[in-house]
Amino acid sequence: MTYFTGLRCVHCGREYHADEVDYFCPACGYHDGILDALYDYDSMRKEINPATLAGNGNRSMWRYLPLLPIADQTLIPHLQVGWTPLYDAPKVAGELGVARCWVKDEGRNPTASFKDRASAMGVVKALEKKASRITCASTGNAASSLAGFSAAAGIPATIFVPARAPEAKVAQLLIYGAQVFSVQGTYDEAWELCMAAAAEFGWYNRNCAINPYLIEGKKTVSLELVEQFRTLTPGSFPDWIVVSVGDGCTIGGVWKGLKEMHLLGFIPRLPRILGVQADGCKPFLTAWRDNCGLAPCDANTLADSIAVGHPRNFSKGMRAVTESGGAFVSVSDEEILGAIPMLARKAGVFGEPAGVAGAAGVKRAVESGIIGRSETVAIIMTGNGLKDIQSAIRAAGNTIAVQPDMEEVRKAVNTAVTV
Amino acid sequence: MTYFTGLRCVHCGREYHADEVDYFCPACGYHDGILDALYDYDSMRKEINPATLAGNGNRSMWRYLPLLPIADQTLIPHLQVGWTPLYDAPKVAGELGVARCWVKDEGRNPTASFKDRASAMGVVKALEKKASRITCASTGNAASSLAGFSAAAGIPATIFVPARAPEAKVAQLLIYGAQVFSVQGTYDEAWELCMAAAAEFGWYNRNCAINPYLIEGKKTVSLELVEQFRTLTPGSFPDWIVVSVGDGCTIGGVWKGLKEMHLLGFIPRLPRILGVQADGCKPFLTAWRDNCGLAPCDANTLADSIAVGHPRNFSKGMRAVTESGGAFVSVSDEEILGAIPMLARKAGVFGEPAGVAGAAGVKRAVESGIIGRSETVAIIMTGNGLKDIQSAIRAAGNTIAVQPDMEEVRKAVNTAVTV
Repeated sequence: MTYFTGLRCVHCGREYHADEVDYFCPACGYHDGILDALYDYDSMRKEINPATLAGNGNRSMWRYLPLLPIADQTLIPHLQVGWTPLYDAPKVAGELGVARCWVKDEGRNPTASFKDRASAMGVVKALEKKASRITCASTGNAASSLAGFSAAAGIPATIFVPARAPEAKVAQLLIYGAQVFSVQGTYDEAWELCMAAAAEFGWYNRNCAINPYLIEGKKTVSLELVEQFRTLTPGSFPDWIVVSVGDGCTIGGVWKGLKEMHLLGFIPRLPRILGVQADGCKPFLTAWRDNCGLAPCDANTLADSIAVGHPRNFSKGMRAVTESGGAFVSVSDEEILGAIPMLARKAGVFGEPAGVAGAAGVKRAVESGIIGRSETVAIIMTGNGLKDIQSAIRAAGNTIAVQPDMEEVRKAVNTAVTV
Repeated sequence: MTYFTGLRCVHCGREYHADEVDYFCPACGYHDGILDALYDYDSMRKEINPATLAGNGNRSMWRYLPLLPIADQTLIPHLQVGWTPLYDAPKVAGELGVARCWVKDEGRNPTASFKDRASAMGVVKALEKKASRITCASTGNAASSLAGFSAAAGIPATIFVPARAPEAKVAQLLIYGAQVFSVQGTYDEAWELCMAAAAEFGWYNRNCAINPYLIEGKKTVSLELVEQFRTLTPGSFPDWIVVSVGDGCTIGGVWKGLKEMHLLGFIPRLPRILGVQADGCKPFLTAWRDNCGLAPCDANTLADSIAVGHPRNFSKGMRAVTESGGAFVSVSDEEILGAIPMLARKAGVFGEPAGVAGAAGVKRAVESGIIGRSETVAIIMTGNGLKDIQSAIRAAGNTIAVQPDMEEVRKAVNTAVTV
């Protein structure tokens, strides 16, 4: 059963029953009135504790049902999401200059990104509401993930993408059968159009920043991290959890999950959160460093999943870093590109630019003294490298062209050995 | 512990100890002298039985260690391979005209294809032999998979690809740090060059058709199927197991795994095997139908992973179908392209052309009376759709271009509803 009790506005603190509001606090509006899901943690302890989880054979995000706002389990779609591998990566630790490093490979989810955790939750809530259709605006992974889970759940989807959305991600949307509007404008314009269409047609709105349930899906990555580390390194937990930051929802979900596991007694102390942005798009870093509010900015980075100049979940994103005593850093596109082969060669994990940005961020944070060399880090690698082959090609080396002739191979092999 | 006892030539029947030969039967040569791995099945029953497996928490192909030719477990690389999801797909069953259909999504493996099961085994054997380097020739998935597992295992790889190999797969190789020879010729020429280079430089040869251990990795998909069905549909097993066919190694591995689980008492009877080829490249189908030997042919199909005109493992591939009382069918490229959105929309599984060919083959087999409408099928979906976005784009529909203006959205939505 679920121990979900209601929703609370992060801005004014007002509380609501789940059937009073769908998305945001009516008093504060959708820019400020983001809601937090509330639970009865005291009562759930008999269902969520190390012993019950150890005996739970469900290897997906749904193993944490008491901690999720789901009333009717029969609505859960069949795609296996979550319980992604967590790898100890000593060679990456050496490269980044930390004592120990782990990589959680979220590219192993059904549509190959972390966003599947949120979309899985989104379609269940849409089915609960008996919605005729579900919608979102996205430049990529949230969209392809929603398309996949809508297909699995049998609910139609309409997705708004900016015209410059990458070919591979748009192909994924269409293959899964979503209706796709290619908006001849910016991502911001696509987002506003989606909000208007959802309101006008009564479609269920999966936009993570205004839908309080989506982040509940995202937090499951932290619930897993805590459980996986109990096995991997009993009695200890990494000093830092590292994740790249766009709208602020992912880092917000990561932090909420950690706090809940701490509250439930799974970890004795909370880690710090490192939020990684791109040099060409770092509104969180700017606001955090200057201790001021959000100033939307341009989005100049090849890491499309974090190219968000106007973060829609500023409050939860900022809270993750300030409450945890963490930090924001930014990295250049060159550092991001360099992290793609580095992670692939040293950990066997091939990530897309936004996915590997966390690794690049650790290096920057170590160099600037934010992370100590004796500290340990876990990097959440958010998306599969196959999502963006063009960036991979820029980061990769070259093939050696030969005629089908052993003499040419011999020459190349001997040259390679002597170089 | 392993119960592996040695190797037997499929051609002359001669048996060898594992340290007597590396790859093929010296008496018969590599065209004919393919070897089968042998085990002491009677003795392993105390370690491999339903009770021990049910209590085994390892969710990867390595849960079947007694049935694998691995002496030293410490050499196993860290990437989590196998134990992929098996989905009940009633809408797909309806579309294909069978009583029930399941889809096993092998695109969820570390480098996004079934071939990871073979490469994981290959690098362990290379490390056992203390090889300086590992090599293979491939047009795609075997190569990217070897590159990924070589990186994970810390052993250098050299890979031979034909010049026309798809961009995405070549990018994967380079990102993982493999040395890549782009051979200005056919796949056959790349294969021969790889064989010569392996022999000359003493590199470990991962070519599946001549390396008897690789198929032992591949068979694990069947070991999993048997175990997963014991939970999903206790007491019964699908009438047909369906897989696309290129070199013949995959279908051979599938069959070997099933026979072993039958021998060990996990399933009361063996299913039939349906091997699916492309209309433009069907050497197995031709030989099976005409009851004659292999006649190598051209390879004209967009499904690059099964575009193999000269199958290197003809004997094991043919044996799977003849011993099981199964069949070969072929499908057109149009049918393959049509199966991509069909599987994505009806099962939530996005596959590459060769990966979905099995589904297209079931439809053809039902139409021609090979598979009865009251029968049940399990399709092994061998590779992720993100591996070949160009084919997906050909199979997908179109986006709806709009200005950022609700009036345009309104018009499109209303049109879509009335159509």
